[in-house]
Amino acid sequence: MNLKNIAQALDIKCEYDLEITSLNTLLDSNKNELTFLENKKYINDLEKTKAGAVLVKKEFLNKVPQDTIALVCEEPYVALAKASKYFAPNVVETIGKDAIVGENTKVLDNVYIGKNTQIGNDCTIMPGVFIGDNVKIGNNTILYPNVCIYRDCEVGNDCIIHAGTIVGSDGFGFAISGADYIKIYQNGNVIIKNNVDIGSNCAIDRAAFKSTIIEDNVRLDNLVHIAHNCKLGKGTILTGQVGLSGSTILHEYVVMGGQSATAGHLEIAPFTTIAARGGVTKSITTPKKFWAGFPLMEHKTWLRLQGKISKLLKK
Amino acid sequence: MNLKNIAQALDIKCEYDLEITSLNTLLDSNKNELTFLENKKYINDLEKTKAGAVLVKKEFLNKVPQDTIALVCEEPYVALAKASKYFAPNVVETIGKDAIVGENTKVLDNVYIGKNTQIGNDCTIMPGVFIGDNVKIGNNTILYPNVCIYRDCEVGNDCIIHAGTIVGSDGFGFAISGADYIKIYQNGNVIIKNNVDIGSNCAIDRAAFKSTIIEDNVRLDNLVHIAHNCKLGKGTILTGQVGLSGSTILHEYVVMGGQSATAGHLEIAPFTTIAARGGVTKSITTPKKFWAGFPLMEHKTWLRLQGKISKLLKK
Amino acid sequence: MNLKNIAQALDIKCEYDLEITSLNTLLDSNKNELTFLENKKYINDLEKTKAGAVLVKKEFLNKVPQDTIALVCEEPYVALAKASKYFAPNVVETIGKDAIVGENTKVLDNVYIGKNTQIGNDCTIMPGVFIGDNVKIGNNTILYPNVCIYRDCEVGNDCIIHAGTIVGSDGFGFAISGADYIKIYQNGNVIIKNNVDIGSNCAIDRAAFKSTIIEDNVRLDNLVHIAHNCKLGKGTILTGQVGLSGSTILHEYVVMGGQSATAGHLEIAPFTTIAARGGVTKSITTPKKFWAGFPLMEHKTWLRLQGKISKLLKK
Repeated sequence: MNLKNIAQALDIKCEYDLEITSLNTLLDSNKNELTFLENKKYINDLEKTKAGAVLVKKEFLNKVPQDTIALVCEEPYVALAKASKYFAPNVVETIGKDAIVGENTKVLDNVYIGKNTQIGNDCTIMPGVFIGDNVKIGNNTILYPNVCIYRDCEVGNDCIIHAGTIVGSDGFGFAISGADYIKIYQNGNVIIKNNVDIGSNCAIDRAAFKSTIIEDNVRLDNLVHIAHNCKLGKGTILTGQVGLSGSTILHEYVVMGGQSATAGHLEIAPFTTIAARGGVTKSITTPKKFWAGFPLMEHKTWLRLQGKISKLLKK
Repeated sequence: MNLKNIAQALDIKCEYDLEITSLNTLLDSNKNELTFLENKKYINDLEKTKAGAVLVKKEFLNKVPQDTIALVCEEPYVALAKASKYFAPNVVETIGKDAIVGENTKVLDNVYIGKNTQIGNDCTIMPGVFIGDNVKIGNNTILYPNVCIYRDCEVGNDCIIHAGTIVGSDGFGFAISGADYIKIYQNGNVIIKNNVDIGSNCAIDRAAFKSTIIEDNVRLDNLVHIAHNCKLGKGTILTGQVGLSGSTILHEYVVMGGQSATAGHLEIAPFTTIAARGGVTKSITTPKKFWAGFPLMEHKTWLRLQGKISKLLKK
Repeated sequence: MNLKNIAQALDIKCEYDLEITSLNTLLDSNKNELTFLENKKYINDLEKTKAGAVLVKKEFLNKVPQDTIALVCEEPYVALAKASKYFAPNVVETIGKDAIVGENTKVLDNVYIGKNTQIGNDCTIMPGVFIGDNVKIGNNTILYPNVCIYRDCEVGNDCIIHAGTIVGSDGFGFAISGADYIKIYQNGNVIIKNNVDIGSNCAIDRAAFKSTIIEDNVRLDNLVHIAHNCKLGKGTILTGQVGLSGSTILHEYVVMGGQSATAGHLEIAPFTTIAARGGVTKSITTPKKFWAGFPLMEHKTWLRLQGKISKLLKK
């Protein structure tokens, strides 16, 4: 979509003639992408952006790089939300190529497969499965009944996804403008790599931009919630009812106990273990430690705290 | 059903000839409805009831209004549960009008639509969706794959409901009679108003009587549990894995963080924010405050508590 | 499968000619079953085992009973995981008898029913339901839309299972061998007895060996997670979002409040009540008590703790 037209739709003055292919973050954008700055704390990212254009408040104009077009507005995040609609693909494609299904792959009854989709060899696609448009599924993967893989998502080789699990539903994203919530269309996808096992009735959201990523050998138990733009490193293990907020990064071999959770926009170092019910609100930078509690503390500290509480109760 | 017949089925003496159309609460019942009093704390409601008849213990007979017929029994709640069965509609209707589907609405493969159901214009009904009997769906609404809308429920205009979400399953209601659990048939429904977005694999229960209500502009994330007879005010936001117990009333613009929850039969004032994992056990009457913890306290108090705990650990 | 062939596949020396029909625990195995000892704390069980063969470390060889063949290896649990694959049934049967469906049972559209499956009389099987191979369903049971009953599972008479609930997905089981996770094929099943009500979008895992069991009159609310090999006694009540870890045993009439949970391999005595959010990490042996908190304490102690905390905040 042309930048002029986007600007017009947002009621922003702009005469530049630039083809915009998608929206993206400050640091990840290229010269055909539109980005935004809402939160002052990312001001350094603005100076480094390679985006073709940026939605920005007047006060930060002087930080916009020379090669980036500034679209000045009062609520950049709201403007971005409004713009996101123009980059949303169709909910369902009606034209396109019929799906390619590999050799020896069994597709059972009542399965829906969208346009431009590829499924590899030796897969089993159980009844009631939904596979949207432009999906890629590798070899030797099992999708149990009623699994949904939304459009544009990818699942690798040798994966098992249990019944009722949803891959690629919209991330929970909206901009607040007075009493209104403006949907941020979630135009990214989910990429699940190889040899990943996922339990039943999980919910894994697609990214707002780019991808929610689940690396090789990840294991998810039942009823796990993965918000948009999370990245789960190789071999991470999430047990029952774990919840990850948006943009959580788990490095390799992180283990999280039942009902534990993270706040968003944080990283957890490799080989970290979070005990059941642990609530992670800040990044964990030292690897291989064992944490518990909410607020989170080292597990040994948590044990000491329980000792203190016992004493308190005896007084 | 005639009151005489209901009484007979419950082994209660009653000679009155009154057509009863449904069951309801003490305060909401009209002269063709049957109600009950189990818990003494609602005795004032008994005095005000306009119900045609009431299931009541002998000791409260003197509080029954003159125009209300008393059905005297030892376990009114158990009697109500037993009576509820007679007001339950069919699980599936086999006769009735075929559904009316509006202009420009796409209904994809493997969708079931019940009798006497209406779907508006410009909707997208994705594969595997179930829409029961006597359902109303507005215009421009998207139901993603495998969404279930149980019979008698309503969804408004401009809604988005993500895959696997269930609207209208039975509330968790039963009366305990010795070692037996007597199902309270959930003869109410769910009403979802306009411009509501709901994530994937949520569970929203129908009311025991009347309606579970979700007002305009509500936003629900994934794996959210809404029990029977809850009311979610305009613009409320519930993030991932939140759980609401029965008859919770959230006033407008309440925000609840991930995995937070409420006990039942309470109200939360407008513009209240509950932090992640907050557990609400009493009504919150002052608006615009920020709460945290379980038991719940003001967020600033919770922060102080964490400071105290840190000190305790240093001793 | 012959023990010789299993041993060969695992690179273990063994010349014995014994037909092995399945894998099982030390105490439950019979003379045609293969078992294992990984954790020293079960050494007494090894001495009592009646298994035909056992995967065992060299150091415990002297504890293996005379009638049990020892398969010596360095990682018995990993060996068991590798062996489990050979006992896994097909994901889908393509040959076998067509299902038998009882009188007066309604099977709606888009339902899949596997081979060798029996459904009783007077059932309602709603649209989108999946019933795998070799399943038994009793009389007068309702399966709401998109319920999945995996192969080999059983559901009794007079049950109600709400939409989106999954019965029989794989338990979360794998052996860790260096950086690899070896799947323990979950070759058991789920047995749901009579008059059980289950809410929507629950996840109930099949057993690794033998059965996950849900006894008569159990009531489960929405989004409940039951891990493999749990046993829920008669009349147990689990409210919304409860999570049970593997091999939890709830004795009769246990009640667990919303979002409460158990660690695995423990028992809870009859008529125990766990308050909302309670976290059970050790067995509860005294019946009829009321517990709360995490870590768990008696509810009256928990109330005292809240009092102490209030005082602490006033200092």
